[in-house]
Amino acid sequence: MAAHAELVCIPEDRLAAELPHADALLVWEFGTDALPGAWPERGGPRWVHTASAGVDRLMFPALRDSEAILTNSRGVFEQPIAEYVAGQIIALAKDFAGTYDRQREHVWRHRVTQRVWGTRAVVLGGGPIGRAVVRTLRALGIETDLVGRTRREGDPEVGTVHAFDELDGLLARADWVVCAAPLTEQTQDLFDAATFARMKRGARFVNVGRGPMVVEKDLLAALEEGQLGGAALDVFREEPLPADNPLWDAPNLLVSPHMSADTDTWLDDLAEVFADNFTRWRAGRPLRNVVDKELGYVPVADAPQAAAEEGPR
Amino acid sequence: MAAHAELVCIPEDRLAAELPHADALLVWEFGTDALPGAWPERGGPRWVHTASAGVDRLMFPALRDSEAILTNSRGVFEQPIAEYVAGQIIALAKDFAGTYDRQREHVWRHRVTQRVWGTRAVVLGGGPIGRAVVRTLRALGIETDLVGRTRREGDPEVGTVHAFDELDGLLARADWVVCAAPLTEQTQDLFDAATFARMKRGARFVNVGRGPMVVEKDLLAALEEGQLGGAALDVFREEPLPADNPLWDAPNLLVSPHMSADTDTWLDDLAEVFADNFTRWRAGRPLRNVVDKELGYVPVADAPQAAAEEGPR
Repeated sequence: MAAHAELVCIPEDRLAAELPHADALLVWEFGTDALPGAWPERGGPRWVHTASAGVDRLMFPALRDSEAILTNSRGVFEQPIAEYVAGQIIALAKDFAGTYDRQREHVWRHRVTQRVWGTRAVVLGGGPIGRAVVRTLRALGIETDLVGRTRREGDPEVGTVHAFDELDGLLARADWVVCAAPLTEQTQDLFDAATFARMKRGARFVNVGRGPMVVEKDLLAALEEGQLGGAALDVFREEPLPADNPLWDAPNLLVSPHMSADTDTWLDDLAEVFADNFTRWRAGRPLRNVVDKELGYVPVADAPQAAAEEGPR
Repeated sequence: MAAHAELVCIPEDRLAAELPHADALLVWEFGTDALPGAWPERGGPRWVHTASAGVDRLMFPALRDSEAILTNSRGVFEQPIAEYVAGQIIALAKDFAGTYDRQREHVWRHRVTQRVWGTRAVVLGGGPIGRAVVRTLRALGIETDLVGRTRREGDPEVGTVHAFDELDGLLARADWVVCAAPLTEQTQDLFDAATFARMKRGARFVNVGRGPMVVEKDLLAALEEGQLGGAALDVFREEPLPADNPLWDAPNLLVSPHMSADTDTWLDDLAEVFADNFTRWRAGRPLRNVVDKELGYVPVADAPQAAAEEGPR
């Protein structure tokens, strides 16, 4: 790649100085908050690629309103995340955490646990992560409904995609509620006391989306009160989760440090996605994984969209 | 059922007195060792049904050589066990145990873990449990080979079933080795130092079969030395596992108390299997789940076999 571009690796504090001169920006440190303040008033990169599936930190007005094409790393994270969700659902159903606790104490205590086959799940998030979760849970015999933005019948991959406004009805009959949606105005604070109250009593909740979709004090209350039978969170409003946050000790809650997508092949996989798009960009060909900046995610109809007509400067 | 039979519920110490008068025996407490000593010298039940999938404790000579039909509870346990295996494989790949440990300490520590999609597994056990495991692992994108007793091509459910003597070659390339076989002379002490040495270094081992198939001191050594990258055992040579057994603290070993099959619907499911067979037996119709007493399990070609021609006395 160095043969085809001048590569500059910049820390956050040099963003403002370098961005006006960059044709393309690879956001490798995708947790950064430095971009909105550093985005140039005019010009700036015509292509921004992020080494993440989520793009909520890139949805600031200057980039959103710019001509820049935004692409993400769809394809790298969804299978590991789907495996994580399946694993946590089985772990909750079979009380793996309780088994590990007893192992530590050398205590043999047989319990009766649950079968996941034949249970029901609803997955919020019609993007590639939600779809991978749906495929995986269905493979385990879990009857799984997918909720996206708008209703669609006959989807070749998942059948019916339910509309967002059907969520409440589906929540009432689900044993498992999985949040795999992007953070948008619609999903911010979505999982609050009212939403948890609409779930079947004892339902379990898994969040692999973004922390701000969950009102954490309401989740804590629902767990303590038993309305929620358990939960597994990989994302939090504040990350790292502070050591004194009560979620660490919440009953039947599995806390993991935002790692569900991160496998030992991810660096190679991320590099491959970027290199493929870079090659396309140089050639003026349509890029992959182009984010719809109005929607905040890559539309499912994944037809590559046209890059800037002129190609790279 | 009480309308159609005289039901006698007997503890172990009354077995010897009651068995000569019983037409049928339901072995509910399937962990019992009392049957061999209590089986009558002549006569005895013409039908023995066990509330388990495994029948190794019923393979004593007097029953084996008798005319009694032996049936088991195939169908009740395999899906929960397959889910357990899938869950433990994901838990090992994603280090759930390490995540729970850090949660207990309120420590946020991101790690890179593994994707199971694209890995390879070999499952020993051509019976219904092994088959359910194969189906479930394949659904997770794990390339899975099944080893049974004899080689069979074109199996409608799993494709090729490999012969037992192909196991060594398959072990060498598997990331996951799952034991779901019945305990027989062939499988007793099968997983010893030599077998672990044939596995790919760092492979992980899951046992949902029976404890005596594993030489536990060799397993411990393989874990400590790193030849095995991890293991999950639900069965042990001595159960309950004594509190001072070193397996409790073995590195990367998940110990669970023989509960992988036991879900909150199992009693209903077990009752249903027995009731169905009881109805068949009364009517002189072929029973389901008839164990081949030479093989020690229900042959896969699951054509119901003829019950005793005269039907119940």
